[in-house]
Amino acid sequence: MRRVTVLSGGMGGARFTAGLLHGIAQGLLPGVAPDAEVTVVANTADDLWVHGLKVCPDLDTLMYTLGDGIDPERGWGRREETWSVREELATYGVEPTWFGLGDRDIATHLVRTQMLEAGYRLSQVTEALCRRWQPGVRLLPMTDDRVETHVAIADTQAPSGRRVVHFQEYWVRLRAEVPAEQVLVVGLEQATPAPGVLEALTDTDLVVLPPSNPVVSVGTILGVPGLRDTLRASPAPVVGLSPIVGGTHVRGMARQMLTAVGVEVSAAGVGLHYGARASGGLLDGWLVDERDADAVARCETAGLRTLAVPLMMTDDAATAAMAAAAAGLVAER
Amino acid sequence: MRRVTVLSGGMGGARFTAGLLHGIAQGLLPGVAPDAEVTVVANTADDLWVHGLKVCPDLDTLMYTLGDGIDPERGWGRREETWSVREELATYGVEPTWFGLGDRDIATHLVRTQMLEAGYRLSQVTEALCRRWQPGVRLLPMTDDRVETHVAIADTQAPSGRRVVHFQEYWVRLRAEVPAEQVLVVGLEQATPAPGVLEALTDTDLVVLPPSNPVVSVGTILGVPGLRDTLRASPAPVVGLSPIVGGTHVRGMARQMLTAVGVEVSAAGVGLHYGARASGGLLDGWLVDERDADAVARCETAGLRTLAVPLMMTDDAATAAMAAAAAGLVAER
Repeated sequence: MRRVTVLSGGMGGARFTAGLLHGIAQGLLPGVAPDAEVTVVANTADDLWVHGLKVCPDLDTLMYTLGDGIDPERGWGRREETWSVREELATYGVEPTWFGLGDRDIATHLVRTQMLEAGYRLSQVTEALCRRWQPGVRLLPMTDDRVETHVAIADTQAPSGRRVVHFQEYWVRLRAEVPAEQVLVVGLEQATPAPGVLEALTDTDLVVLPPSNPVVSVGTILGVPGLRDTLRASPAPVVGLSPIVGGTHVRGMARQMLTAVGVEVSAAGVGLHYGARASGGLLDGWLVDERDADAVARCETAGLRTLAVPLMMTDDAATAAMAAAAAGLVAER
Repeated sequence: MRRVTVLSGGMGGARFTAGLLHGIAQGLLPGVAPDAEVTVVANTADDLWVHGLKVCPDLDTLMYTLGDGIDPERGWGRREETWSVREELATYGVEPTWFGLGDRDIATHLVRTQMLEAGYRLSQVTEALCRRWQPGVRLLPMTDDRVETHVAIADTQAPSGRRVVHFQEYWVRLRAEVPAEQVLVVGLEQATPAPGVLEALTDTDLVVLPPSNPVVSVGTILGVPGLRDTLRASPAPVVGLSPIVGGTHVRGMARQMLTAVGVEVSAAGVGLHYGARASGGLLDGWLVDERDADAVARCETAGLRTLAVPLMMTDDAATAAMAAAAAGLVAER
């Protein structure tokens, strides 16, 4: 296998891809050449306009993580960041105050925003930004169109009894501490895949769904019209890694999102949500954590080849081992 | 006198206005009440769009200087500034690299740009920004329209033998080290005065032309259609202070600009360029520095009441004394 495609959200997907690249370079992935090319199709439904700037959290987390610019403690934003702009905006009393942009990060958004306003598409802008970051992958936004995930939450003060907030407000301001009643992905049905995205699903030797959020990361990518059908028709094997470990998410808010869409919060639940290709789903293989070994029988019964291995991305070596297990599971197909 | 209007550029005008406010509050200005209100009409022809942000150097220098946010060493930009965005933009290789925006300063431009894009006029934006800065004056842009000073310089490689650059490029990148062949103020003839500007010239008790650049600061303000005529018809006395001291500018590039427009680079030259009101000009009084005492006789001969006093703005007290001399000169009118 010389070509690998990853459908990724932000932090989890970025860390997985870093480990995947590590594993490929070390020749650890069964059947995958050490110089295999990796394409990452990134979720853009978390994107937002803030202070007049176009911010793409998942693209940036991927770019910074793979380009060695990420703040490793936070897992998002830039290393050696400063926060002068945020301080000043707060002094001006400008909303939103809950979405803090670092100064170095703002430079990325300034370049992106100016390019978009000059007429370049997000995929072209991403390519331009990656010329600096050299992430070692081809990084594609899932679409060049504006798509935004919103979340409906209970609000006793609203006449309807609920309120709809941008995903970032749900996650960053509300810290996902209130139940999500519904997930609304605005613009998704009208979106078209960005250039290269469908080809990355078809003209590839392996597709990986990393342990990203199955609803608001991988789910929105798969929701871009044409994408799911193309993936199902792809000759390449598709393997996924469970973001649910020990019955909940490792980091993030997959639990809340799965609950909102009525999917069982378990490794088996997510695997069966993606579904076995044999029965009309997407997956040729599914990796669950050792703590969720009970999922293996349930998934296998549904025709989904499933393996339980350690799924904690503690470092690149551990993550590379996960990627190797994933590739191994479907290489035998 | 309870109302004073100043037509100001950036650094020189801002320092003068700070001293003027100091003098007024101390009761040092003959005939001017200690609670007199000051309106500053600011030049906006230096404004530029850079990295997608609307930057108004003169408005900002006035706002920061009078609002105690200025970097006193540089004389422009914010105190305790950080430069992370500039570093990053340079790493991205984004032009222009010669116009460095500080991080704190960028917050101002983000607020301004977003308000402009939401449909607010520059005068409204300026009022909003001043709510934070409380500059102690009413700060008005000369116009809400886009006006930009460009400078023609010799360029032996250009087919025409010359090249036109934005004023900021001439000043910041080229450091005004090459002769200016022509000054072109794009959009000036189509501009209309911002709300309140004409009233500030008419419904006032004193108009001061501070030692700002007579061509690209005061000159562009006076060039806004209707402004010069309104000032000439104003019942308020108009007094100016020479920006040329000892035969050249104190700081800035008044020498180069005056040369470009064919005005003698001397205290008398600038005074006669503004002209005595009695002979169709603007001024009722003109202050020159003691070193330029020879200008007194020349200006007086042309009907312009002129006085030689120390004109170095070394501190607020010295500047207040200049303002007091200016007010005194025309209070007797």
